[in-house]
Amino acid sequence: MRRDVTLREVAQLAGVSSRTVSNVVNGYANVTEPTRARVMRAVEQLGYRPNVLARNLAQGRSGQIAVVVPYLDTPYFSELLQGIIRAARMQGYNVLIDQTDGDPDHERMLISHGRSRLLFDGVIFSPLGLDQQALADHDPSLPLVILGERVSQGTFDHIGIDDVAASRQATEHLLDLGRRRLAAIGDQPYPTGEAAQLRTRGFCEAHERRGVTVHEELVIATPRFNRVDGAGAMRHLLDLPDPPDAVFCYSDLVALGAMHVLAARGLRVPEDVAVIGYDDIEDGAYSNPPVSTISPDKEMIATTAVERVLLRIASRTPLPGRELRAPHRLVVRESTVGRGAASRAG
Amino acid sequence: MRRDVTLREVAQLAGVSSRTVSNVVNGYANVTEPTRARVMRAVEQLGYRPNVLARNLAQGRSGQIAVVVPYLDTPYFSELLQGIIRAARMQGYNVLIDQTDGDPDHERMLISHGRSRLLFDGVIFSPLGLDQQALADHDPSLPLVILGERVSQGTFDHIGIDDVAASRQATEHLLDLGRRRLAAIGDQPYPTGEAAQLRTRGFCEAHERRGVTVHEELVIATPRFNRVDGAGAMRHLLDLPDPPDAVFCYSDLVALGAMHVLAARGLRVPEDVAVIGYDDIEDGAYSNPPVSTISPDKEMIATTAVERVLLRIASRTPLPGRELRAPHRLVVRESTVGRGAASRAG
Repeated sequence: MRRDVTLREVAQLAGVSSRTVSNVVNGYANVTEPTRARVMRAVEQLGYRPNVLARNLAQGRSGQIAVVVPYLDTPYFSELLQGIIRAARMQGYNVLIDQTDGDPDHERMLISHGRSRLLFDGVIFSPLGLDQQALADHDPSLPLVILGERVSQGTFDHIGIDDVAASRQATEHLLDLGRRRLAAIGDQPYPTGEAAQLRTRGFCEAHERRGVTVHEELVIATPRFNRVDGAGAMRHLLDLPDPPDAVFCYSDLVALGAMHVLAARGLRVPEDVAVIGYDDIEDGAYSNPPVSTISPDKEMIATTAVERVLLRIASRTPLPGRELRAPHRLVVRESTVGRGAASRAG
Repeated sequence: MRRDVTLREVAQLAGVSSRTVSNVVNGYANVTEPTRARVMRAVEQLGYRPNVLARNLAQGRSGQIAVVVPYLDTPYFSELLQGIIRAARMQGYNVLIDQTDGDPDHERMLISHGRSRLLFDGVIFSPLGLDQQALADHDPSLPLVILGERVSQGTFDHIGIDDVAASRQATEHLLDLGRRRLAAIGDQPYPTGEAAQLRTRGFCEAHERRGVTVHEELVIATPRFNRVDGAGAMRHLLDLPDPPDAVFCYSDLVALGAMHVLAARGLRVPEDVAVIGYDDIEDGAYSNPPVSTISPDKEMIATTAVERVLLRIASRTPLPGRELRAPHRLVVRESTVGRGAASRAG
């Protein structure tokens, strides 16, 4: 590998001090224009590149933020990441991406000793395996913004939609279509599955409001919010003596897995079983039939997360935690209302 | 933000020299066990964290590789990225991810001055906007591995499947089913759309081998390989006086977009129009109907890319460029052969 050109060699060629070269390269104002031009000619002639690592070391920061998600191949996260990378780049920040696979030890490590082990100034984090206590124990000197459904308690910000309200809305949509045997796919046990539990709460609240009984045996827990788990849960539901006439899925991927099984069994969506998802990923808009869903404002979540983490990085004292709500809306497509009604709605 | 504890403070508390603390923290062997224990107690008591940035600076490397892709929300890339992150982490490397949006200027910048601007030791790069010349002009001191369909010429490695052979195979599959009016969606103009051009070549070669005429008016160029472009091209094809009876799509996303339009027009897949995609993303396996496709060995592409870039980072002299082929296979599903035949094939 080519030996790197040093600051001193540039200084020698330009006939100035190393400090002057440093001032020019770092864009400081205390250099005359002829000197600046002479230094820049030497920089170009030698192919000198300022050592960013050294500069960041002197400033005590890396110019990077880390974004930590459970799974990169989940479209919801890749759509969100795209927005975060764009927002960060506009602020001159690079984004380091890490995938935890939802492993609690890996997640705990990232918010406790993460700042020294990795090379970032702040973290935008979507935890999966951690409970409230582990989050509260995070390194308070680490600028931290949490994505998802947790209640903020501590020196970090939290951004998410109102999951209970959104799930209630999705469920009420199914009930208002006259469906009465509603299944829910994606419940998860306490303490780690908080997102899932909030969605189950919304599902139950909608039943209460409409005076309809919740069929407990139709609320199915799954390890993940993915297609495979959606397909497995749907198979189980269809094998019951009295299967559901509608399904609220805790992600669009779960809904796509469920619809795959319905199609394979020759059942019609929504005539035999209505299906609604959650997340509004692009796949759901193009599936056959297109999936009704809850659409979180991902653009706002991404830009707010970047703004908040940069604010925390810039602050000399830890800021109090803030709870930030992004808006969501119900998107009605064919998987709940059929072709004619969906095109009238669209 | 909390003031960081220094090496010197640890040394004072432990009653040893700063150099001894440094030796302990860096795991060097020349320290007695009692001294090591005393230093570690002081490290824990003060909450000292070794400065990774400083250590990497001393070693002249960052412990990071960059992975640069055109679009993060393309499932093919997020599936590949997941494999790359896992392989890199097993080698103690972090992954920095950048998204170019296919912008040639951004891509050129990354492989010319990238090493200094960002903080990485090597790059795994999937270019979209760059032509051969721009790639050949890359900074030769930057360890570089290219993903995709380009021919290697220079001091970088290239990993991809045999696109011409794979596309020929997909097309022959359609011809062998008796289809005769084949469309192709995804062609792109020279010089940047090389992946697309190789696929068009395979499409034409299959026609030649089977003695079937290529219908030039059915070969449709699209700006991207995504659902929106697939849908737009399919609408155009269906509006022709003599529409196709089969479509070879240059990505599964294009196929999903095309199938969305076919369903909306009330046409049956494969009875009216057979559809085959490319990439074998999970969406295609779960769509209705599931999509036949070309499946590249993504696991092998990911692990080979990481191995090659780490080898280049470790080497003290630039290594000659290598051309590496990953295997692929044709996956036959309902979108070309219908339900009965697909389940017999599976």
